[in-house]
Amino acid sequence: MPTQSREVRLASRPQGEPTLDNFSFATVEVRDPDPGEVLVRNVCISVDPYMRGRMNDAKSYVPPFQIGQPLEGGAVGRVIVSQDEKFPVGAYVQSFYGWRDAFVAPAASLQIVDTAVAPASAYLGILGVTGLTAWVGLFRIAGLKHGETVFISGGAGAVGSAACQLAKMHGCMVIASAGSEEKVRFLREELKVNYAFNYRDGDPHEHLKRAAPDGIDVYFDNTGGPQLEAALSALRNSGRIAMCGGIAGYNTPVPGPRNLILVIGKRLRIEGFIVSDYFKDVSAFLEEAIPALKSGKLINRETVVDGLDAAPAAFLELLHSGAGNIGKMVVKLSG
Amino acid sequence: MPTQSREVRLASRPQGEPTLDNFSFATVEVRDPDPGEVLVRNVCISVDPYMRGRMNDAKSYVPPFQIGQPLEGGAVGRVIVSQDEKFPVGAYVQSFYGWRDAFVAPAASLQIVDTAVAPASAYLGILGVTGLTAWVGLFRIAGLKHGETVFISGGAGAVGSAACQLAKMHGCMVIASAGSEEKVRFLREELKVNYAFNYRDGDPHEHLKRAAPDGIDVYFDNTGGPQLEAALSALRNSGRIAMCGGIAGYNTPVPGPRNLILVIGKRLRIEGFIVSDYFKDVSAFLEEAIPALKSGKLINRETVVDGLDAAPAAFLELLHSGAGNIGKMVVKLSG
Repeated sequence: MPTQSREVRLASRPQGEPTLDNFSFATVEVRDPDPGEVLVRNVCISVDPYMRGRMNDAKSYVPPFQIGQPLEGGAVGRVIVSQDEKFPVGAYVQSFYGWRDAFVAPAASLQIVDTAVAPASAYLGILGVTGLTAWVGLFRIAGLKHGETVFISGGAGAVGSAACQLAKMHGCMVIASAGSEEKVRFLREELKVNYAFNYRDGDPHEHLKRAAPDGIDVYFDNTGGPQLEAALSALRNSGRIAMCGGIAGYNTPVPGPRNLILVIGKRLRIEGFIVSDYFKDVSAFLEEAIPALKSGKLINRETVVDGLDAAPAAFLELLHSGAGNIGKMVVKLSG
Repeated sequence: MPTQSREVRLASRPQGEPTLDNFSFATVEVRDPDPGEVLVRNVCISVDPYMRGRMNDAKSYVPPFQIGQPLEGGAVGRVIVSQDEKFPVGAYVQSFYGWRDAFVAPAASLQIVDTAVAPASAYLGILGVTGLTAWVGLFRIAGLKHGETVFISGGAGAVGSAACQLAKMHGCMVIASAGSEEKVRFLREELKVNYAFNYRDGDPHEHLKRAAPDGIDVYFDNTGGPQLEAALSALRNSGRIAMCGGIAGYNTPVPGPRNLILVIGKRLRIEGFIVSDYFKDVSAFLEEAIPALKSGKLINRETVVDGLDAAPAAFLELLHSGAGNIGKMVVKLSG
């Protein structure tokens, strides 16, 4: 008997800020798996700011979403029917078949995750692509070293909160910004960063000067915009910027920093990256992250939304300046 | 009998575009050299766009010029009186005691140059800091490789014309821009770049698309501004930008590129540098440059101005968009 799956589709491409009208829902039949395949029912799916880029019809590092087709994204689900003995029924698997209840896929395209170590949703957050993104940006791209000072914009978001914690674990002085008082409290009280500020409250340049009078070594950029400009001013000679996201400009392009010329005199390096280029590093990352999560040095803070119907609104919320989510935004499905 | 030296001083700090009023002249007595020192009379001095930054009272990679004090810059001169046997009278030496007729300095702070290889002024240009700057930017910073495509803004200027030639010598496809038809002709006919354009004539984006439909690998940035924005659009995945100068914004800051976000999706690297960090590489550079100059693979094109009195005007001219100089701007002194 065929399985039903409800899915979220791209109804139309947004102009500027997306709305709920850009999404539609449909229920489809999922065929039975062939040999080597499994049928998976998702238990949680990820919504991420970078998905905004895929809603445009523009060449980028991932192909654009197609109108009338289901969206894609990170997901963790359970194997319901298996035609591959290495993926038994009941196993939890990580995939990019998000935004839907269920799917069939070649087992080899999925990764089994161990829910004895952490709940399924942690594999979307601190143990998943989110955590890996923070780790790659800090250590592979920016080359952050013990004792250095790092500024992380969007520090209370999914990647930002992972970056704050990983940098602290490595003995760094961490400055982080966020867009609400609640988030700033989270940064101070739960993540225990050295200096947290609300980027809407006062000039970011002044905050950075107060937090690090001698300057910063690394800027982990999740936002672009005025915070990037402030970071360029605050960076010391030979400073590095890992460009991870530019949420300030996802809906509407923002002007570039007026002080980019500082890159020359201060010998700065600005480097962009896409986490999928570093999936080969996932075991090195997990070797560090799993024990830290078990010992409580890392926490996996989530903002949870219930049910597929709520996914588009949760995604739109992420893109708002001062979005409500703290940590990773996760949509739980009935499973 | 003491030697007289006429020198150019900073009279006042410019606001925006400098004028002749920002400079003054004075004649001073130069004392006789002590043991280990030499007295040098300059034969040619360098004027360079980066000197504009030193006219501001701002912390940077070199200290600002001081009001009432002589300016500094690259120079080649002849030893007139020597108290160091390794620096005989008549030897030509390279120094940073420019903007003046004569000076006394410790011999160990100077480099002897061989005028049998090339005329003295070539050590300010293609064999000097200018050539080294181009070489460091292309190969040490941007990692330009044989067969790659490079775009060089300000291609007819001192550093730009050296970069065009060095990139061609390394088997690269070279696209270069300049600000006048005469300079574009120089790029095409003398430097034989693959594609040259006048950045005031048409959209730089369109020129780059026409020149390199598949994109560019490296951008050597002498200008910042709209050409940097066009380069960000034209760069291929994993492209590199060596930021060497930003003449578009030296007098008045220009807005940053609106498309800086492309750094993420295309995994670009933007890196600034200061040539003085690479003086240790000068022999590696000269090993390549001297034979190439002798064989005619490199040419040392200059725009020569006569006499110290003309130096301030020559410097101001450099900063004009569409400046008249082709190649290295050199001021010849009576020697």
